[in-house]
Amino acid sequence: MKLLNLDHVGIAVYDLDEAIREYEAKYGVVPLYRETVEAQGVEEAMIPVGGSFIQLLRPLAADTPVGRFLERKGQGLHHVAYTVASITAALDHLKGQGATLIDEMPRAGGRGAQIAFVHPEDLGGTLIELVELSDG
Amino acid sequence: MKLLNLDHVGIAVYDLDEAIREYEAKYGVVPLYRETVEAQGVEEAMIPVGGSFIQLLRPLAADTPVGRFLERKGQGLHHVAYTVASITAALDHLKGQGATLIDEMPRAGGRGAQIAFVHPEDLGGTLIELVELSDG
Repeated sequence: MKLLNLDHVGIAVYDLDEAIREYEAKYGVVPLYRETVEAQGVEEAMIPVGGSFIQLLRPLAADTPVGRFLERKGQGLHHVAYTVASITAALDHLKGQGATLIDEMPRAGGRGAQIAFVHPEDLGGTLIELVELSDG
Repeated sequence: MKLLNLDHVGIAVYDLDEAIREYEAKYGVVPLYRETVEAQGVEEAMIPVGGSFIQLLRPLAADTPVGRFLERKGQGLHHVAYTVASITAALDHLKGQGATLIDEMPRAGGRGAQIAFVHPEDLGGTLIELVELSDG
């Protein structure tokens, strides 16, 4: 088990269109695509920067994880995601290390990826997402 | 002005040694180096992951930006840093866009880099660090 790449930072925002406009005007970067991921209750915009993405997240409803995050903390950094070669092997390893998982099994994320979240109380107060991309 | 790479995510932690141990045991990654940056009031450990770093930050004192962050919010995601080709050009561009800057002028960061912070209230509640690496 080894993290391969910093895939993205997830940022919860109130207004996706406005955030996209500001990233373009101020930082010269634009989304590669937008996608609604019903299973996670978000619309996301993925902005490539080097070998990683800025993932802007707008909740589809107040009663979703990102909606509750916005209600509680306001907009800002929500999670950080790393690619792994095998998400099932990574979850097995983390269970063996006694890690506090949100997802015991992989589930569907954006881009056809398999993803799983590790609880922020597990390490450094950080919500960590593991991503196994569909192209390996 | 264009962001070139997601250089690092900065994570404020209470115990740097423990966080380093946990990242190694759970995620198979280890610091490339540790460095005390007096000007920022932190000891930092830089853990390479693909083309980016996880930057673990321990405040040198309670009365520092990271010390106050820990006091107010607990440990967790603190900022995200992007490399730019020219930090002075980036700051000029941001001023022209009416961005709310923390640093009007570049200052010294770790690795001999020139850095500047953009206020979290400027865009998406996210504290953004711009980095011009010393090797260009």
